[in-house]
Amino acid sequence: MSKLRTLLAVAMLVLLGFAPAGVLAQTDPLPSWHDGKAKQAILDFVGKVTRDGGPDYVKPEERIATFDNDGTLWAEQPAYFQLLFAFDEVKRLAGANPALKSKEPYRSVLARDLKGLTADHNKGLMQVMATTHSGMTTEEFAAHVRNWLSSARHPTKQRPYDTLVYQPQLELLRHLRANDFKTFIVSGGGVEFMRVFAEKAYGIPPEQVVGSSGVVKFRAGANGKPDLFKETKVEFVDDGPGKPVGINRFIGRRPILAFGNSDGDLQMLQYTTAGEGPRMALIVHHTDAEREWAYDRSSQIGKLDKALDEGKAKGWTIVDMKADWKTVFPDR
Amino acid sequence: MSKLRTLLAVAMLVLLGFAPAGVLAQTDPLPSWHDGKAKQAILDFVGKVTRDGGPDYVKPEERIATFDNDGTLWAEQPAYFQLLFAFDEVKRLAGANPALKSKEPYRSVLARDLKGLTADHNKGLMQVMATTHSGMTTEEFAAHVRNWLSSARHPTKQRPYDTLVYQPQLELLRHLRANDFKTFIVSGGGVEFMRVFAEKAYGIPPEQVVGSSGVVKFRAGANGKPDLFKETKVEFVDDGPGKPVGINRFIGRRPILAFGNSDGDLQMLQYTTAGEGPRMALIVHHTDAEREWAYDRSSQIGKLDKALDEGKAKGWTIVDMKADWKTVFPDR
Repeated sequence: MSKLRTLLAVAMLVLLGFAPAGVLAQTDPLPSWHDGKAKQAILDFVGKVTRDGGPDYVKPEERIATFDNDGTLWAEQPAYFQLLFAFDEVKRLAGANPALKSKEPYRSVLARDLKGLTADHNKGLMQVMATTHSGMTTEEFAAHVRNWLSSARHPTKQRPYDTLVYQPQLELLRHLRANDFKTFIVSGGGVEFMRVFAEKAYGIPPEQVVGSSGVVKFRAGANGKPDLFKETKVEFVDDGPGKPVGINRFIGRRPILAFGNSDGDLQMLQYTTAGEGPRMALIVHHTDAEREWAYDRSSQIGKLDKALDEGKAKGWTIVDMKADWKTVFPDR
Repeated sequence: MSKLRTLLAVAMLVLLGFAPAGVLAQTDPLPSWHDGKAKQAILDFVGKVTRDGGPDYVKPEERIATFDNDGTLWAEQPAYFQLLFAFDEVKRLAGANPALKSKEPYRSVLARDLKGLTADHNKGLMQVMATTHSGMTTEEFAAHVRNWLSSARHPTKQRPYDTLVYQPQLELLRHLRANDFKTFIVSGGGVEFMRVFAEKAYGIPPEQVVGSSGVVKFRAGANGKPDLFKETKVEFVDDGPGKPVGINRFIGRRPILAFGNSDGDLQMLQYTTAGEGPRMALIVHHTDAEREWAYDRSSQIGKLDKALDEGKAKGWTIVDMKADWKTVFPDR
């Protein structure tokens, strides 16, 4: 195909009212990122792996990018949102069944008594998770998550949880996909929880969400209506060394780009960068107490300690939220 | 966008040498299928779910199609090809280590003594599978499969195993993808085995292959080169009731079309057709002793009994290989 013919075709399409992605005048694909080292590193990486004939060219089918979710794509303070969902579900269940209010571990949840919940190796917490995440069909669970997302508000930000996603990351996901990357979530969060909102919030379809899971059982059902029933038993924890295992299991290829924010992402970043050819590892460093939260080495949630040291030592891209992001959350 | 402008744009593209899929003169997308009920049912289904504004329209992201592999996309006689791979691997290992030749269960494999292998609840067979499928990294295993595919020949067809794929199914996969379906394999076969050839053989990328798996462990490795080590323990059997479970786990959406060939596919077909809106279930019936094999209710491999009855009763599309397929295997 000659360049002239391509140009003519594009011109025709534009005149006729089509505006194919990426062929119009180049605008900044990452407007919410400050110009700086992190943004430049991203643009350089995407540029080189897509430069056909260049030394770092990567075929489109190998352009796999994996993103942690909590603290990387959306916020995770004051606690993982899935945990806040579980607490809100207890409230909902206690509304329908007031006897729960005086029964442990539900009493502790309603009293926000974390000490009671985490005693005896998190026994209470596990029970709360089981009550709110199992003993129902996958479709019933998804409906509960959907209802919660549409009604619940974050305790301090006062916004729906699925609007506490990071605007710069939405732009990055789009930029990667516009360059034929396939974008995946690889998170310690529950896969059935994330799939409810990942497509709308991030443009990531259910089949590109990898996460922790409980055992699910096929039931033939009466009247030819089989269903899938969520059992209590934990099946897979997609965190730490579980992340490369989850990547291998669900994706079956090593990513060329991985983005995390905590020590739970360390092995994913190691596995990604140990592959041959161009690889990129990125870490969100939560440094912005004003617009979001500031935490790292000593945080209970999203602890970033070893991965920060290793990332600095190995030259991974550490994204300083305060310095690198013009905007944190999308306008509403 | 007016119809006129669309037409003009298409005309321009064609004049300029572009040939966008699906806008040129309609040619038969399934040339290896005889005109008949099965082919018509497929064309009708794809037509109605893609007819924008029609009563059966399905959004592209919901167009999930799942295919069993053994006996549905490629042949499975005289035994599952993965088993023949394991046997060939024993031969290779015994070549390097002759002591194996007199040691059970390897002796039985080399003597093709299936009775010895299947005695005591398949103990010998399990050990053969463990020896050939674990105790190595995922990359080492993939290399073994790749070497085998490039050198081994099917015992009676005398062709490489990955050429014993069904030409009509390749056309169907392409037709579905051309209509914005996402095509998945959902097979009892090993996921790491199938991923080696699925992309080249079927155009199905690794991340769209769902299968059985063994436990895989992340190892940090010396010198910063982590790897994934295949352990002996079975993790997930993607067969029978495991298929809808695997679909839920890996895909997270209910298929609108599923294609199988044996009772191991029954639950996948039930789960698929139990969804709301248009759904299609198909079964390959192996009726062609001349070009392929003829087997169903009493076969050890790919037994088709209950699913055939239920398929007939429920009006699923039963594809009669002999009557419905003009060609079975691709020309070489």
